[in-house]
Amino acid sequence: MRVVDLITKKRTGQEHSKEEIDFLVGGFTRGAIPDYQISSWLMAIMWRGLTDDEMFVLTEAMVSSGDVLDLGDMAATAVDKHSTGGVGDKTTLAVVPILAAGGVHVAKMSGRGLGNTGGTLDKLDSIPGFRTGLTIDEIVGQVRSVGACIAAQTDTLVPADRKMYALRDVTSTVESLPLIAASIMSKKLAGGSHNILLDVKVGRGAFMKTLEDARSLADAMVRIGKAQGRHVVAVLSDMDTPLGYNVGNLLEVREVVALLQGNAWAEPHLRELVLRLSGIGFLMSGRCETVADGEALAEKLIKSNAAFEKLSEIVTAQGGDASCLDQTVKQPVCRYKLDVHAPDSGYLYSLNAEAIGAAAMRLGAGRATKDDTIDPTAGIMLRHTQGDMVVQGNIVATVCAPSEAQAREACLDILEAIEIRQAAPAASPFIYETIGLD
Amino acid sequence: MRVVDLITKKRTGQEHSKEEIDFLVGGFTRGAIPDYQISSWLMAIMWRGLTDDEMFVLTEAMVSSGDVLDLGDMAATAVDKHSTGGVGDKTTLAVVPILAAGGVHVAKMSGRGLGNTGGTLDKLDSIPGFRTGLTIDEIVGQVRSVGACIAAQTDTLVPADRKMYALRDVTSTVESLPLIAASIMSKKLAGGSHNILLDVKVGRGAFMKTLEDARSLADAMVRIGKAQGRHVVAVLSDMDTPLGYNVGNLLEVREVVALLQGNAWAEPHLRELVLRLSGIGFLMSGRCETVADGEALAEKLIKSNAAFEKLSEIVTAQGGDASCLDQTVKQPVCRYKLDVHAPDSGYLYSLNAEAIGAAAMRLGAGRATKDDTIDPTAGIMLRHTQGDMVVQGNIVATVCAPSEAQAREACLDILEAIEIRQAAPAASPFIYETIGLD
Repeated sequence: MRVVDLITKKRTGQEHSKEEIDFLVGGFTRGAIPDYQISSWLMAIMWRGLTDDEMFVLTEAMVSSGDVLDLGDMAATAVDKHSTGGVGDKTTLAVVPILAAGGVHVAKMSGRGLGNTGGTLDKLDSIPGFRTGLTIDEIVGQVRSVGACIAAQTDTLVPADRKMYALRDVTSTVESLPLIAASIMSKKLAGGSHNILLDVKVGRGAFMKTLEDARSLADAMVRIGKAQGRHVVAVLSDMDTPLGYNVGNLLEVREVVALLQGNAWAEPHLRELVLRLSGIGFLMSGRCETVADGEALAEKLIKSNAAFEKLSEIVTAQGGDASCLDQTVKQPVCRYKLDVHAPDSGYLYSLNAEAIGAAAMRLGAGRATKDDTIDPTAGIMLRHTQGDMVVQGNIVATVCAPSEAQAREACLDILEAIEIRQAAPAASPFIYETIGLD
Repeated sequence: MRVVDLITKKRTGQEHSKEEIDFLVGGFTRGAIPDYQISSWLMAIMWRGLTDDEMFVLTEAMVSSGDVLDLGDMAATAVDKHSTGGVGDKTTLAVVPILAAGGVHVAKMSGRGLGNTGGTLDKLDSIPGFRTGLTIDEIVGQVRSVGACIAAQTDTLVPADRKMYALRDVTSTVESLPLIAASIMSKKLAGGSHNILLDVKVGRGAFMKTLEDARSLADAMVRIGKAQGRHVVAVLSDMDTPLGYNVGNLLEVREVVALLQGNAWAEPHLRELVLRLSGIGFLMSGRCETVADGEALAEKLIKSNAAFEKLSEIVTAQGGDASCLDQTVKQPVCRYKLDVHAPDSGYLYSLNAEAIGAAAMRLGAGRATKDDTIDPTAGIMLRHTQGDMVVQGNIVATVCAPSEAQAREACLDILEAIEIRQAAPAASPFIYETIGLD
């Protein structure tokens, strides 16, 4: 087999055999096939796509490139959760402790966020002492003892995906649906849980801009899971508007804490999504018969404080100072706060998630490049959300910034990102649909 | 400017600016942009193509990457000649001395052949002592003193093309029309002649399999030349059947010698093409008023032996033993000769140029990989050509091989490659059309 012939095969729209994909992925991971051949092959995939069989085989080949988490007797009922990422998306931090409080094993591994806002690991890094770098044994041990774990994906898991993603990132070959699906699912399959719960975001602040694209991605991931005998459910939810009120790492931890403590000011969409995902997770794990039952269980676990206690337990198990969670006085403080006032009276017609995410990133809440460091205190607190009525001069948001200049710049960004109109926005669904529930 | 953004631009079908292409070509040539980004960009070009402006700018950027031949006062009337390559294509060896014998300056630089049969340099290497590796000064000096020179492209000419072609060769990004046109034309522009004569081959033994593709390529090259103020004429000729009788390096030199000596057995198509290209070359150079006049001049130069004497002069000037040209006794001898007999009586309906080229390569007349060495004596002598009547048992070809096993294998290959039918093949044009003649 010659690599150049395989590139030609894909370039001319032909289907690869399993042997061919194994040869390419294996050779690339070992360093036997140079990057310049794989990048041209990846661009040919952007062009010609992959059939389902190719996508299944590619996912398998990536899983086989490294270790796989062995959850033993916990695997069948364990639930893993993944979000395709969005602005203000802190659902993992809420759903994992809720599920664990309800007796579901959750071995959640995450990557680092690159782009608008930090990933789950970056949010957890804002808790003093919290360790995300656990070994496979530590992860499995903590899932058994505490019920859940939120850790960084170890270096030995799916090295092929890590290497390929790094190459895709610099060769403009990220945005291929089958490559995205295979990348996400290879990590979830290697994560060892039988049940995989996916939150696929749609809209301006998401990778997938249209419902159609998001549905295609979700469908593909459900099919990959099925081909591997896993149970995958994907929820499609809106990311046109930021999720919840807070954008920024420590700010998002605070919002989760408030939600888990049953705080009345929880943003309705965030609460709806957390309950829905938890409800589906309970159903997948066999803890209940319907999603509604699962949602009721999740609400009960919040009311009883069990969910918040489980979050504290997870934080403590991973070396973090759990007392920081609800004692804001122990948390680091941002240097400059600046309010953004409504320039007009009317309905908050639109909040552009992408623009608000970019503003938060410039404040230090996210990374523009891999080497940027994150300021845990930086971010944006929205005081209102889409559809709210605001009066001219009201505070619509507060910016937390490391410098006054950055704070002022972010205020202008936010004024650009919001739209106030005299008419209320038409009601639109927030959770669009759920794929893979039988 | 970020390379990844430029790749995205091309991937999404947008047009590059001159600055962008200069940035990419310059960075790649200097080694500042890694191969893996350029190969993915090249695959995006395979997908989306290049506009004329992009193709012009790319060609210019490649020319600017190195030295350019300065022919001084000879440039305006000098003629360069290039063939896109085919099986048995020895026209350069005949056309260059004919033009030079008629007073036209020809500074012909070639690359090494990769594929079915050797290139012009490989054919010349079969003449003992012949030096193809001249310096730029030697090339210009010989064009001035002898009238013509056939040498290897120097390392300092269009290094960007050399580096890019090497990458395209292993990343399945060779077959892009604008990349092919830019690659060929960058070398011709750097060659310094105002007049550029292109022989674009069409058919099974050529890179371009259809007349439509060949016409598109020829058109593109003519447009590139025009954009640079050069005069480019492209002749489209058939390469479904090998050109001439002989395929193989020394064998082809012999066929050219016979043609230039006015030998009656010259294959009609080879003779037709050599006269046509020479005629157009004389016209471009201003030596005559019409192509027909130019063809008549070429015939005269053959009859008077001036063309053959010019070839001898060129060979001598480049250190070769010109007496070898017509004294076959001084030429190296192949080890095994084996005749191929007609399995049937009838018309030689078809000779598959690609299959015959591949058989010749396996005999040692061409290179499968860059590191293969060429056997100058290896090859195939066809005794008949398309449309000839043959009688069962007649010799249709003779194989010249380095070993008996290879000779036998080639005989079987040839029997596979020829087709004898009871009906004569329909008459079809050999020279399809000429593009760029005013």
